[in-house]
Amino acid sequence: MNYQRFFEEAIDQLHAERRYRIFADLERIAGEFPRAIWRNNGDAKEITVWCSNDYLGMGQHPDVIAAFQHTAGRMGSGAGGTRNISGTNHPLVELEFELADLHRKDSALVFTSGFVSNEAAISTIARLLPNCLILSDELNHSSMIEGVRRSGAEKKVFRHNDVAHLESLLQAAGRERAKLIVFESVYSMDGDIAPIAAIADLAEKYNAMTYIDEVHAVGMYGERGGGITEREGLAHRIDVIEGTLAKAFGTLGGYITGPQAVVDAVRSYAPGFIFTTALPPAIAAAAATSIRHLKNSQSERDAQQRQAAQTKRILAGAGLPVMPSETHIVPILVGDPELCKMASDRLLGKHGIYIQPINYPTVPRGTERLRVTPTPFHSDELINVLKAALAETWDALGIPYASSDKPAVAKSDRVIPLVVPAAGG
Amino acid sequence: MNYQRFFEEAIDQLHAERRYRIFADLERIAGEFPRAIWRNNGDAKEITVWCSNDYLGMGQHPDVIAAFQHTAGRMGSGAGGTRNISGTNHPLVELEFELADLHRKDSALVFTSGFVSNEAAISTIARLLPNCLILSDELNHSSMIEGVRRSGAEKKVFRHNDVAHLESLLQAAGRERAKLIVFESVYSMDGDIAPIAAIADLAEKYNAMTYIDEVHAVGMYGERGGGITEREGLAHRIDVIEGTLAKAFGTLGGYITGPQAVVDAVRSYAPGFIFTTALPPAIAAAAATSIRHLKNSQSERDAQQRQAAQTKRILAGAGLPVMPSETHIVPILVGDPELCKMASDRLLGKHGIYIQPINYPTVPRGTERLRVTPTPFHSDELINVLKAALAETWDALGIPYASSDKPAVAKSDRVIPLVVPAAGG
Ligand SMILES: Cc1ncc(COP(=O)(O)O)c(C=O)c1O
Ligand SMILES: Cc1ncc(COP(=O)(O)O)c(C=O)c1O
Repeated sequence: MNYQRFFEEAIDQLHAERRYRIFADLERIAGEFPRAIWRNNGDAKEITVWCSNDYLGMGQHPDVIAAFQHTAGRMGSGAGGTRNISGTNHPLVELEFELADLHRKDSALVFTSGFVSNEAAISTIARLLPNCLILSDELNHSSMIEGVRRSGAEKKVFRHNDVAHLESLLQAAGRERAKLIVFESVYSMDGDIAPIAAIADLAEKYNAMTYIDEVHAVGMYGERGGGITEREGLAHRIDVIEGTLAKAFGTLGGYITGPQAVVDAVRSYAPGFIFTTALPPAIAAAAATSIRHLKNSQSERDAQQRQAAQTKRILAGAGLPVMPSETHIVPILVGDPELCKMASDRLLGKHGIYIQPINYPTVPRGTERLRVTPTPFHSDELINVLKAALAETWDALGIPYASSDKPAVAKSDRVIPLVVPAAGG
Repeated sequence: MNYQRFFEEAIDQLHAERRYRIFADLERIAGEFPRAIWRNNGDAKEITVWCSNDYLGMGQHPDVIAAFQHTAGRMGSGAGGTRNISGTNHPLVELEFELADLHRKDSALVFTSGFVSNEAAISTIARLLPNCLILSDELNHSSMIEGVRRSGAEKKVFRHNDVAHLESLLQAAGRERAKLIVFESVYSMDGDIAPIAAIADLAEKYNAMTYIDEVHAVGMYGERGGGITEREGLAHRIDVIEGTLAKAFGTLGGYITGPQAVVDAVRSYAPGFIFTTALPPAIAAAAATSIRHLKNSQSERDAQQRQAAQTKRILAGAGLPVMPSETHIVPILVGDPELCKMASDRLLGKHGIYIQPINYPTVPRGTERLRVTPTPFHSDELINVLKAALAETWDALGIPYASSDKPAVAKSDRVIPLVVPAAGG
């Protein structure tokens, strides 16, 4: 038994499929977002990040950084324990109040990440319901899939955003069986939005519980940043709303909000919540500052939407294959993994523009893409620079431009990854 | 189907078993560790924390806090993306070098927590080995159990630290089958230490891979804080060493170190690593500062050992039932869940001393305890105050003192929790 061999073979397989990942070593420059220093083979070079999930640039907001620094100075760098054993710090308690208020729910519970919140909450909720059937959108995030799997519950996958398919599954299960519908509001690779109202209607009709991941929407949609459920006035019709503190809020951590008994049960029964060190007070204070700011300020959301629309317009105007998206996410179709990686490398090396290639299994084969995320700090000037760099790259590599008779993507091509996900993330 | 009911019943069950947890709302005071402000029903009161896992007080070390604040000022409050998509920040890259060096391994990989590192690494390693058999110590931490479960591999549990039992299981599996032995160095509820050399011998004899959790030892044992494996010169004989940045190093996050191919495979295949936002640069910089400091400074380790020995001596001298422990952990037997909770409440409310009760299922029924963790900052004076408070509490509640003919614990009483863990953490 040569153990080494199995790990080497697993790596070789990724190389062979052109899926081996090399991480870009970045140093973000606070105050100059989206600029960063990129280190490569001993070189250090300033570049522009066009694929950050710090969607509103809140990670460099002076008030957020000040809260971070001030709280670390007063309370230190760590929590020092699990939530139960000396790790519940006052900023974390305050953050949970802030989050419950954000979504107008009874209670909130903070986890070390959005990933952990999905895994821990979905698995625990489903396990506490006898003979629960989970109905899961086929494009749900890896963390939700892990939660479903960990629950041990029976699962049925419904076609992406397909309400008729979901209804047929609900109907087959019957009103009397416990059912949990898990889905996202904004799907982050295509930028499309779930039919939340229709799903809530079905949940009522068939008496199912609902769990929504608003990771790519919180902070960015709704009057106070409560996500798509806030924008559409639907928060009260969804049982559990999950989100992250690590994207638009610019910090780290994840959370759920919902009815008091549900949140308390997750708090009391989920190993991924119980047996791990709590978030440091400085992170909690920074996150709460960011949330409070975005509850009261509309300007970041407006500027993000404006610059996202501008990016779509300018890139599409240059004939680049911008994929249809209902949100701030701007995917550009490449359609080939090798070309996608080459385009990304060329943009970074030649143009100082960083956009990570998105290949299978994060997206289906044939829909490989560059996923661009404009923020309020991506000025019109930067958008024009991006356009020129993309056009140069498209020409140099012979990547197809958009053709008027063929849309940039067929969404029904999407498949569920059947292998261990190795790309993306 | 009334969903609410199931969650309420789950909570009621915890109340009925006296296992319902109320978290103490704390505000640590940097510079005055282990002092903290405790908030309760509108009151705020200064107390002494005696159950922190910030074992060396590094969470308030001026250099660590300075690195934290300085890096946040330069690079912002968050990483802004997953490791693959714009989240790999330079301090994180440096931290991984620091960790590989700490354990003298090829590579290191950082996760958002020690919990996630165990779950993601154990499950991925075992899945990449065909027909892998996992041999797991019966007292392994919840995060390791989750990793074992998630792997889908066959598992055999060996009796705690029982080398003969482990050997019989290895023998039955045969040399040719892939085998992964997972265990801890320091078990945190009893403070005992695994027979690492004997386990490494067996792993060689039967050709098994080894994975050790050094979460409660890194920073605190070995000349440079490399844990028990460093102290005993055994690091090179264990394949994968896992640790946390959230206990003795005073920050947040977890990691593995090991052979390049193993670490690279986990990096490339573990969903819990791939699909989640990276640790913020400020956390990484603070952790690296803490690790570097403890590589070069022995004084914190010496002071911790001295104060732990002093605590054991003084409490045992007062007849308190100090349980045998080979490490810095000082468990005091109560032996009843209700009394344990009452003792903890009285210590906090009356004496301003915070020690969380440790009840079933974190420890077996009948071995409920107070788990005391002396740090370099728990002075002789504080130890004497603790002794007096414990004695007052023992008298007031009628908790048994140590009797000379009965040791404070019978370790073989330990059982594996069969239910969803609800306590501890
Ligand atoms: C839909 C979705 N849910 C959850 C997560 C995980 O959130 P976090 O980065 O806070 O772990 C992500 C991405 O990271 C995501 O895209
Ligand atoms: C043995 C052991 N491993 C892993 C962990 C998890 O580490 P972290 O707190 O960094 O998630 C803990 C406790 O928290 C632990 O006791």
